[in-house]
Amino acid sequence: MSGQKIGLLNGGGDCPGLNAVTHGVVGAAKKLGWDVIGFRDGFEGLFPPGDCKLLKAEKTAGILKLGGTILGTTNRGSFSSKVGEGGIRKIPAEIMAQARETLEAQGISALVCVGGDGTLTTALQFQDEGFPVIGVPKTIDNDLRATAMTFGFDSATQVVVDSLDRLHTTASSHKRVMILEVMGRHAGWIALYGGIGGGASAILLPEIPFDYQKVANAILEREEHGFRSSLIVVSEGAAPAGEAQVIADASGQGEVRLGGIGEQVADKISELTGKETRCTTLGHLQRGGSPTSLDRVLGTRFGVKAVKLIEEKRFGRMVSYQQYHVGSVPIKEAVSELNLVDPEGELVDTAKSVGICFGD
Amino acid sequence: MSGQKIGLLNGGGDCPGLNAVTHGVVGAAKKLGWDVIGFRDGFEGLFPPGDCKLLKAEKTAGILKLGGTILGTTNRGSFSSKVGEGGIRKIPAEIMAQARETLEAQGISALVCVGGDGTLTTALQFQDEGFPVIGVPKTIDNDLRATAMTFGFDSATQVVVDSLDRLHTTASSHKRVMILEVMGRHAGWIALYGGIGGGASAILLPEIPFDYQKVANAILEREEHGFRSSLIVVSEGAAPAGEAQVIADASGQGEVRLGGIGEQVADKISELTGKETRCTTLGHLQRGGSPTSLDRVLGTRFGVKAVKLIEEKRFGRMVSYQQYHVGSVPIKEAVSELNLVDPEGELVDTAKSVGICFGD
Amino acid sequence: MSGQKIGLLNGGGDCPGLNAVTHGVVGAAKKLGWDVIGFRDGFEGLFPPGDCKLLKAEKTAGILKLGGTILGTTNRGSFSSKVGEGGIRKIPAEIMAQARETLEAQGISALVCVGGDGTLTTALQFQDEGFPVIGVPKTIDNDLRATAMTFGFDSATQVVVDSLDRLHTTASSHKRVMILEVMGRHAGWIALYGGIGGGASAILLPEIPFDYQKVANAILEREEHGFRSSLIVVSEGAAPAGEAQVIADASGQGEVRLGGIGEQVADKISELTGKETRCTTLGHLQRGGSPTSLDRVLGTRFGVKAVKLIEEKRFGRMVSYQQYHVGSVPIKEAVSELNLVDPEGELVDTAKSVGICFGD
Amino acid sequence: MSGQKIGLLNGGGDCPGLNAVTHGVVGAAKKLGWDVIGFRDGFEGLFPPGDCKLLKAEKTAGILKLGGTILGTTNRGSFSSKVGEGGIRKIPAEIMAQARETLEAQGISALVCVGGDGTLTTALQFQDEGFPVIGVPKTIDNDLRATAMTFGFDSATQVVVDSLDRLHTTASSHKRVMILEVMGRHAGWIALYGGIGGGASAILLPEIPFDYQKVANAILEREEHGFRSSLIVVSEGAAPAGEAQVIADASGQGEVRLGGIGEQVADKISELTGKETRCTTLGHLQRGGSPTSLDRVLGTRFGVKAVKLIEEKRFGRMVSYQQYHVGSVPIKEAVSELNLVDPEGELVDTAKSVGICFGD
Repeated sequence: MSGQKIGLLNGGGDCPGLNAVTHGVVGAAKKLGWDVIGFRDGFEGLFPPGDCKLLKAEKTAGILKLGGTILGTTNRGSFSSKVGEGGIRKIPAEIMAQARETLEAQGISALVCVGGDGTLTTALQFQDEGFPVIGVPKTIDNDLRATAMTFGFDSATQVVVDSLDRLHTTASSHKRVMILEVMGRHAGWIALYGGIGGGASAILLPEIPFDYQKVANAILEREEHGFRSSLIVVSEGAAPAGEAQVIADASGQGEVRLGGIGEQVADKISELTGKETRCTTLGHLQRGGSPTSLDRVLGTRFGVKAVKLIEEKRFGRMVSYQQYHVGSVPIKEAVSELNLVDPEGELVDTAKSVGICFGD
Repeated sequence: MSGQKIGLLNGGGDCPGLNAVTHGVVGAAKKLGWDVIGFRDGFEGLFPPGDCKLLKAEKTAGILKLGGTILGTTNRGSFSSKVGEGGIRKIPAEIMAQARETLEAQGISALVCVGGDGTLTTALQFQDEGFPVIGVPKTIDNDLRATAMTFGFDSATQVVVDSLDRLHTTASSHKRVMILEVMGRHAGWIALYGGIGGGASAILLPEIPFDYQKVANAILEREEHGFRSSLIVVSEGAAPAGEAQVIADASGQGEVRLGGIGEQVADKISELTGKETRCTTLGHLQRGGSPTSLDRVLGTRFGVKAVKLIEEKRFGRMVSYQQYHVGSVPIKEAVSELNLVDPEGELVDTAKSVGICFGD
Repeated sequence: MSGQKIGLLNGGGDCPGLNAVTHGVVGAAKKLGWDVIGFRDGFEGLFPPGDCKLLKAEKTAGILKLGGTILGTTNRGSFSSKVGEGGIRKIPAEIMAQARETLEAQGISALVCVGGDGTLTTALQFQDEGFPVIGVPKTIDNDLRATAMTFGFDSATQVVVDSLDRLHTTASSHKRVMILEVMGRHAGWIALYGGIGGGASAILLPEIPFDYQKVANAILEREEHGFRSSLIVVSEGAAPAGEAQVIADASGQGEVRLGGIGEQVADKISELTGKETRCTTLGHLQRGGSPTSLDRVLGTRFGVKAVKLIEEKRFGRMVSYQQYHVGSVPIKEAVSELNLVDPEGELVDTAKSVGICFGD
Repeated sequence: MSGQKIGLLNGGGDCPGLNAVTHGVVGAAKKLGWDVIGFRDGFEGLFPPGDCKLLKAEKTAGILKLGGTILGTTNRGSFSSKVGEGGIRKIPAEIMAQARETLEAQGISALVCVGGDGTLTTALQFQDEGFPVIGVPKTIDNDLRATAMTFGFDSATQVVVDSLDRLHTTASSHKRVMILEVMGRHAGWIALYGGIGGGASAILLPEIPFDYQKVANAILEREEHGFRSSLIVVSEGAAPAGEAQVIADASGQGEVRLGGIGEQVADKISELTGKETRCTTLGHLQRGGSPTSLDRVLGTRFGVKAVKLIEEKRFGRMVSYQQYHVGSVPIKEAVSELNLVDPEGELVDTAKSVGICFGD
């Protein structure tokens, strides 16, 4: 089995730790005497003759600390599945054929696909059609039930906490209410961890519909207790009770611009409390930048495990983190099952214990 | 002159380094055997009986690293000047009288006022009406002609550079144009330094009206040269040629919400280049957080100098930085003369030399 | 049970996240209407009349981000156990009596002790002698078998990774071998995680005795493969095979100054490879500074759980992290069972897969 | 003059901002239609046939944020001057001849040399022997009289301040005296700025011989005033009065390992005060890592100016920063004149005003 050539690509939104996965894949492959071909810009790089290059361990050694992905990635590209006959979503046959042509011409024996739901669904079709794939989960929101942890989440949360630290000083200088809108369309983990770690006064999540008046009351009560300022962390997918945000695309594949819930919270809380409010939307600052130690280690482990799965010919599986160890699950079982914040769970309970309001 | 009591207050928007000034004032006063009384929330703290406290060196030793101001500050408060008889802007006499009552009751011999144009103009009226004041300039935009450097600017610029580093990785992963809107209503120093330091492709400043088509061309040309992404830094006060933004309040005293020029640039550049664009507005993240080394040292020097000016009874003067030394100028001469970016100067020329487009 | 007063103290070396525990304890107690009395400098604060103060939630809200401990702590103080009759280590009865006097005079109903082996052993004696205690584990080395994670470890590891990032650039500029000595007397987790995350070429751990020649060979081989530099991370407790470092005090209670293994590695590797080497000892830089997001959240959860255990009258137990949830174990079972790096485990295997040498 | 080829090299120790200079040189050259050839590892890269490569603007655009130097550098290499006939220090003629051979073979019209005293002295010999050079000053210690500022200094100082912030929390938790040894063999600027910015209690500099007893007294006095801890910053070149450190090599060309003054201060202060002390030596952590905003901008300006000087055929000159503008001076006048801390100057005076002890 020596001398084989494996392919690697990144799909969907970029995420801190993607390069650590590449580092892990290339390192582990080198140890087996294999070559790794990196395809650029996700599946798009599979169009003939293939936009790709040989990844050398000497070059990938320095990428651990880099944010983003040196391979490039694509959101909602040509390989998005489309509803076909019988209502089944599939990638058109002519697109698949072109990809197969490239993979065969390049002599690729197996393809490692790093991405979210959309990417993994596409990967599954390759597997189902006879081309061996291994999946590596990527979701900065940490919302996949099949893995206890995903890389990128810790880095994004750290950006939220650092931003809250900054906002605290300016909020307190001016006796203001500061609102910080963070990522999290369906799952509020970033807001929840970031809000606890950054000392927020209120956290508004997709999983817990909120009442503006309750949030406003909590702010006013804080003031009575002598606090000079309040910080509210809002997931982009949070919504007041009865007004759940319409999420345009629940497939998870594309990027959806939600409706500016942060600004809305700022306006409403200002109105209800009579206090000065200011909203900051973190946006892309959460995705970029050097990954945290944890994400670098986790990404490296995921990359190494992907190669081991190929070595063991356990195709069609996705790397996952369970019980503090890196293992694997069938891709089929893994996609689309979301891991949401439990409104009755220990973490929300902890937050409430230290006085954080959820507006429920 | 031993045993005297001096007052200290911060006015206008908060700024990294304010606490270093407080540290400098309290330290230098302690050495002379003086007490420092800190007034809370700017001039508002002067209303009888005075919202103030004795600042102890043991307590202020740890504040150097803190962002914001431990004293609190106020924008556009009761001490804003109002147009009175003969068109002269003055603080109403009854307000001044209350402040004098507090200062006398507290036994304050001189007042150190740290702030921007508005704060210093108010301070000047105290001086003109016989109450000794010393001014310390505070402008995060670094736009005061009377001082070669002001604290806070370096910290704000560092936040811009760090943010550009983050955006670079995500822009490059997705082949996008990223726009970053930064502070700078009248002067574009933060955008200029931040943009050069963060490797921007284009910088749009209040001082250089720009042409969208020229910016779009520069982006497209970069793409032809093999760059995967472009970053555009936009001052909040920048405007296309012929459409100069209406700045609601040029007095500099209050905070003005400008019209979202960053989002406008994103839309227009997307239209003209056909490329994906995303806008991030840094907002309050630029003000908060721990000051840089430079700002801590500069703030400390300013604070120490303020006390020395009191010791030398050189009242009505403002601390300033000139020729790498801390000196002073009359407050009267200092206010309102803006230090703008020179479109023909060495710094803009340097930026153009490394390929940065200004849209002119 | 309303209105009760609980005590809180920190023992042993300081650790990022200690203040988050305090924040959690105070917040959760406030919610129950309880008061928290913080004792200064560990058990030393228990000497009559008690060096302590009431901790207010309004004050502890801002401490989440602070490194160190606002309560102060003591290593090897008066409450260290001493070998008495029958060879049993105990705290002298007269010391215990004084502590009891203070606790009773202050009306403390239960004491939360945050610390390592030494602190928890002392806490156990209080419990055994009838005074209710709750333990919270603190070990920056993450080496306690009874809990899957401890706060402080992630922050320390992040400092190691940031330092390696710095050393990489200077090592590579000069074609040098850089050695970084990090914490870890008995367990090499910090070196292992930090080394993988920071892209080390070799990691030397207490659990894996190493051979200098093998390390030197790995360095030389890297050079042949075109790498310009190499970084070696060394746990302070690492030792060459057959020369295990004598650890002066295995009780874990005090701080032991080990013998400078980092400098020794630098000298030996320089001799064997003929290359320039430089050693940096991180020391106390690993302990201080603002905790990471993860450590802040974990510390807060631990603090809240400690109060819940008191509420449920489950005394003599230690908070622990298991299966991604915060639970508890009997203190008796928890102390002294070390969680060491498994030389055959997935993490060491991952490191080897990406080319890291362990000298074995 | 179009189409010319210029050379670029870095000499001496690495320094944050070196890559910004390269970015500036390559950008400005590209604008003129020139090529830049980068020589590796300082003058060593000049040995035939030349270890060099063409630097492309597309590649150097991303290096602004990188610490170290992508070109590599050498300390005390083959181009160090040696004392020859008549006691004049010169580079041997055969070495110079080989370099000339490479420069001519490569078609280099002028050489930009970025470095300290040693590098600039070597550059001068090239100029004197008829090969056109431009110097760019590099001294992380900021100790060159001919330029008001040099890149790298701000980054190094920021590392010192960040480290002091970390040490403060652990010092205060344990009531310890922490000593931090920083760079500065002849000039104590890093210790002075870092110490003021980081809130040190004492700063020991090469320019101010100190008395241990005076330092110890200051520490004890602080304790009486209620401070829980003290931090002492020590330049590596500091020495007690009457015991000036023997600096092995004052030529500034090589790296000298001094005698561990930090550890010595720790031992002596512990002895004199009876307090626990700990020493941390920052070492190479000060050199590496991403440059600050200020250093990136300054480096870029220096690089652009070097190309302008070539364009204007003003050879034999060194770029310098004066009156807030980038200009130039003859290299001959620039080397070896040190800019030392003035013990009577405003900055030392400011430090003393906020209670910092210098041991004098």
